[in-house]
Amino acid sequence: MSSFAIGVDLGGTNLRIAAVDEQGALLEKVTTGTQVARGRDSVIAEMCDAIRQLSAKFSQGARLLGVGIGVPGIIDKRTGMLRESPNLPGWHDYPVLDEIQRRLQATVILENDANAAALGEAWLGAARGLDDMCMITLGTGVGGGIVQGGRIWHGMTGMAGEFGHMTIDPTGPRCKCGNFGCVEQYASASAVVRMAREAIASGRAPELARAASAADVEFSSKLVYSLALQGDKPAQEIFHKAGWALGILLAGLVNALNLPMYVIGGGVSAAWALFSPAMFDELRRRSMVYAATAPPEHAGGQGASAEVTAHPMGQPTIVTRAVLGSDAGLFGAARLAMLESELQEHLGSAVDARKGA
Amino acid sequence: MSSFAIGVDLGGTNLRIAAVDEQGALLEKVTTGTQVARGRDSVIAEMCDAIRQLSAKFSQGARLLGVGIGVPGIIDKRTGMLRESPNLPGWHDYPVLDEIQRRLQATVILENDANAAALGEAWLGAARGLDDMCMITLGTGVGGGIVQGGRIWHGMTGMAGEFGHMTIDPTGPRCKCGNFGCVEQYASASAVVRMAREAIASGRAPELARAASAADVEFSSKLVYSLALQGDKPAQEIFHKAGWALGILLAGLVNALNLPMYVIGGGVSAAWALFSPAMFDELRRRSMVYAATAPPEHAGGQGASAEVTAHPMGQPTIVTRAVLGSDAGLFGAARLAMLESELQEHLGSAVDARKGA
Repeated sequence: MSSFAIGVDLGGTNLRIAAVDEQGALLEKVTTGTQVARGRDSVIAEMCDAIRQLSAKFSQGARLLGVGIGVPGIIDKRTGMLRESPNLPGWHDYPVLDEIQRRLQATVILENDANAAALGEAWLGAARGLDDMCMITLGTGVGGGIVQGGRIWHGMTGMAGEFGHMTIDPTGPRCKCGNFGCVEQYASASAVVRMAREAIASGRAPELARAASAADVEFSSKLVYSLALQGDKPAQEIFHKAGWALGILLAGLVNALNLPMYVIGGGVSAAWALFSPAMFDELRRRSMVYAATAPPEHAGGQGASAEVTAHPMGQPTIVTRAVLGSDAGLFGAARLAMLESELQEHLGSAVDARKGA
Repeated sequence: MSSFAIGVDLGGTNLRIAAVDEQGALLEKVTTGTQVARGRDSVIAEMCDAIRQLSAKFSQGARLLGVGIGVPGIIDKRTGMLRESPNLPGWHDYPVLDEIQRRLQATVILENDANAAALGEAWLGAARGLDDMCMITLGTGVGGGIVQGGRIWHGMTGMAGEFGHMTIDPTGPRCKCGNFGCVEQYASASAVVRMAREAIASGRAPELARAASAADVEFSSKLVYSLALQGDKPAQEIFHKAGWALGILLAGLVNALNLPMYVIGGGVSAAWALFSPAMFDELRRRSMVYAATAPPEHAGGQGASAEVTAHPMGQPTIVTRAVLGSDAGLFGAARLAMLESELQEHLGSAVDARKGA
């Protein structure tokens, strides 16, 4: 009998649920109308309903292995509660995991959304076939996740991979985390908007100023992106700055982690062609490991989808774009449930073997 | 029958060899007169002689598990050759591992010296009893190593843990690695000397200038340290700067790796009382994980030997000094040989079990 798992992406605005089979085929994806703003109880009730429906639909011919849920914020793996989740107000110190497990009567795994996305890209995306990688997610903020041996590497308490708050410039802009000059202050959607407002205030960005004052559109990172694509220099400089910061971050990660692949995803990664040349320039300049081995033919051309570096010891260091878009988190969450189920089965057969002996 | 391993520290100046039993007791330590400057063949011959003598001495009542050798530089784990080792000129592209194994007829493990030191501190030192930790080694340069699950985490090609070349200030002093503002430019013995010379050149460091012009002593980081201990402000500021850089590095590592312990060792760590207050200040300011949880009674007092942070999820994040001094690398190298021997035995019994079945 074949089997499947359910992956959930509980975002800051709405809720998406997918059934995924063991080979990684998407059986069905549902985007619910649930407004996360309507609060915890409403969201949990509707999420459990939707999971039950999907599960019933595919349980005819296949076995449900479990449910994985990606959540923005910091998860306490011991208690199954959210610790910090600015986008899910009211979920703090509530036994999320217990409550969902009680309602569904199934194994449920709760995971940070950036970690789930990293696992998704490792399983089926840019890093398919690699056991070790990390992912940097450029969204409203900057998140990240490390995959090692095909599993999320949690560190001591599930917080490993918080690349967004590593320091790029110790005298840079203040971050809401308390630090100054975090990656998130240069390479997130909010940073793009902040840098655009600074450019407008400086009086040197007339096109950005015009766009910002138009009453009918929201001034967003997408707007800055459009202007940059149209050739507006001040808008382009903002993405160069984002690339500069990402290059410094990557140089540090390549030196410290020596992984075979670094994947960049999230909404802002759509601007890859605009930020990646500056990013690769900094990376080459600042990481001897990376620099010593960059083949001239991959010398960071604008718009290149990946830069492959032949490693001195034969293996390349690859920095590339994510390929699964917003589905990475759904696939990763489903994969988590599958891995947990495998683990339980191994433990089960080990116990059986010991009993038999 | 009890067993032991031999650990070797092949430093830039001389060669130390130790026999260590499985419980971590030092059976005997030899510092050979071998001058590394006399060249590769001479060093290898004398090292193999000394290993044979130690091995013969303890092989009466115990079994030799293997030999681990810590080497400054980058090791190609596939070929057993050194790739970059400024302190061992002439060793480049020479089959070090094969040659030593051939002469000794024993299992030999070659490892980067900072990795070996990290494993030593994890096994018997500051992180004894912890499976996961990392170590930052402040010597002539700045090195590092990551231990995960009680083993060195190598990354893709053995280069993981190169913390010394992570960027602290993107516009900082140029490093020999090609980057600007590396940790090594602030927190190594060479950086202490460079910053002292800069202070002298600025005309604001009369005591340092006097010490530097004295013909009978070598101007070294130790001299700067002595002046700082005597209360010389310009000398103290140099160690504050080192602490500032280490705090920024640690904040990034705590955010990215979420390990239970960060150990600081190497010669410069002797100046812990001088640099650690600034280090803890930056760490608290720049890592929300660390800051949110620092108990007031451990608020980074000068001279404190460790700062313990109660983690939001119950476990503390500990930043502390190494305790094994220059023996960390010897113990770590011996431990490597033991781990390799365990692995071989497991593989052996797995094969036996399969044959038996």
